[in-house]
Amino acid sequence: MWQIIRSVNTKMLTSGTLQQMLIHAQLLYLKSTSNGRVKLHNARLKSIQDDHLYHIALSTGSDDLRRLFGDVKVVCFGGQATRMEKFARFIAREFDVSDTVHNFAAGTDRYAVYKAGPVLSVSHGIGIPSLSIVFQEIVKLIYYAGCENVTFFRIGTCGGIGLEPGTVVISQKVVNGALEPVYKQYILGRAVERPAKVDSDLIRQLYACSQNDDKFKTVLGTTLCADDFYEGQGRMDGAFCEHEEEEKFLWLRELADRGVTNMEMESLGFTALCDRANIPGAVCCVTLLDRCEGDGITTNLQLLHEWQTYPQILVARYIRNRLGL
Amino acid sequence: MWQIIRSVNTKMLTSGTLQQMLIHAQLLYLKSTSNGRVKLHNARLKSIQDDHLYHIALSTGSDDLRRLFGDVKVVCFGGQATRMEKFARFIAREFDVSDTVHNFAAGTDRYAVYKAGPVLSVSHGIGIPSLSIVFQEIVKLIYYAGCENVTFFRIGTCGGIGLEPGTVVISQKVVNGALEPVYKQYILGRAVERPAKVDSDLIRQLYACSQNDDKFKTVLGTTLCADDFYEGQGRMDGAFCEHEEEEKFLWLRELADRGVTNMEMESLGFTALCDRANIPGAVCCVTLLDRCEGDGITTNLQLLHEWQTYPQILVARYIRNRLGL
Repeated sequence: MWQIIRSVNTKMLTSGTLQQMLIHAQLLYLKSTSNGRVKLHNARLKSIQDDHLYHIALSTGSDDLRRLFGDVKVVCFGGQATRMEKFARFIAREFDVSDTVHNFAAGTDRYAVYKAGPVLSVSHGIGIPSLSIVFQEIVKLIYYAGCENVTFFRIGTCGGIGLEPGTVVISQKVVNGALEPVYKQYILGRAVERPAKVDSDLIRQLYACSQNDDKFKTVLGTTLCADDFYEGQGRMDGAFCEHEEEEKFLWLRELADRGVTNMEMESLGFTALCDRANIPGAVCCVTLLDRCEGDGITTNLQLLHEWQTYPQILVARYIRNRLGL
Repeated sequence: MWQIIRSVNTKMLTSGTLQQMLIHAQLLYLKSTSNGRVKLHNARLKSIQDDHLYHIALSTGSDDLRRLFGDVKVVCFGGQATRMEKFARFIAREFDVSDTVHNFAAGTDRYAVYKAGPVLSVSHGIGIPSLSIVFQEIVKLIYYAGCENVTFFRIGTCGGIGLEPGTVVISQKVVNGALEPVYKQYILGRAVERPAKVDSDLIRQLYACSQNDDKFKTVLGTTLCADDFYEGQGRMDGAFCEHEEEEKFLWLRELADRGVTNMEMESLGFTALCDRANIPGAVCCVTLLDRCEGDGITTNLQLLHEWQTYPQILVARYIRNRLGL
């Protein structure tokens, strides 16, 4: 049955019935193949008596992680701590969760970790290096807490390419600055390449959560993950710029021709790390501007804040369906 | 005279007289060759009517940058906002500055910007991508503010290699994970390499600020800049680890043999960007552990906080000398 469902065309999945069917089928599938526990990629962790998750100010020795986080089913990451706090409050209201939303990582200012019922809302800062630290500490946290069948999302903001500002893009492919779907690391002096392999099933399920009467448009696209906000995204308003406007537009046109719909700074690491940890993960970002029109954001703050809730609304629908809330 | 001073051996520079002589000679040199204004690397900025420094919530249209920041002579960057606030308060006390220390970037939670007299204290988050954004917006800020003869520092924390924890390392060379002094970027799809060239004169001056009776040891060394805290620094306590302990120690020994004294996550981008902006810059970090002894930090929090003030003390002495305070 799973194979049949997998072959269903995404376009067919906008109806509620099919969407529910798909999600329940996946849950059955997960349950039938494993206990859904996070796969341990470092056997040595088992022998660490007191593991300090330094950057989120929690530890296995001082905190009862199983009691605090054992019920977590979804982890949502996003750049800014205040946005992720708002998201946790939104989830708490939406699902009538009685928990007081507070920052479990208040012992540090590196990252913030909020919880609303079965949903963790975590800030990751800017860029892959910053994301990679909190990502790994959250993977360790849900492992120590004994969580099962956990799904990760990155909900963020981005620059669009040829899209109306305020459009939600679900990344069905993520690439680096050379348009390769590869996350490169140096480990013990050796260059290592990790595939940034997306989870097609989760992407399909999330896309199916968009509705025809939404205030916003949701699209599937290829996301370019840059290591820099200015030159790395071809902007001409940074402290440095050595290229001409014509070259920038040629590049943007080339990107559009190759299916690139948006640019941000974390999707590549997020996707590769989810794949490696065997955790279903998806990236869902709202465009704050159309880079084909310019480099600067001209929209007023109130509207920008509203746009930032769009990926949150989509993910909240997925959570409602998935957890039967 | 400058050539003579440049050739003076660093070892000779611990005496106050020589140190003062060197710094005054450099100031004369700067004044005689240029007006010390930040070099503009993007002529287009001149034509932008209202430049929004998005990530620090300031703009040329709404803020009188010249009045607010025109007197800035030193900018210190560090990872954490709370640490940089403490540093600004320390500078305010040290130099009897009457300004109330507050966060000029309070309109966002991306970064924090504090000011104490002629010193800006700025948080940069974790990793080069995060640093590169606030670095460029601060370069634009000091350009718009008309600042002259500005010096940049990164004061942070790091892992040491074969050094007693609590040692201050001034980076006299910075390298990437392949031990190359190169910062790589993708611009319009092309790979671009920028040399991470250190400022030897500034390093010498900062090193000369260490004193024989200091509670802490200060050394010059090579800094490895990693893009990741766990595998990228050879740690074995992350969510992923595929290498054995013996391989890790072989690598650490190789690093030590090649003069690498410490590892952190921003020095490469910081050094390359300072060089490109023609701004004297230096990296000065305290080691929180000796990686040859293990991967985890075992020191108590109180002592860790004390250690974090050591690079600040050194830089404060430089500021005192440089500005004649």
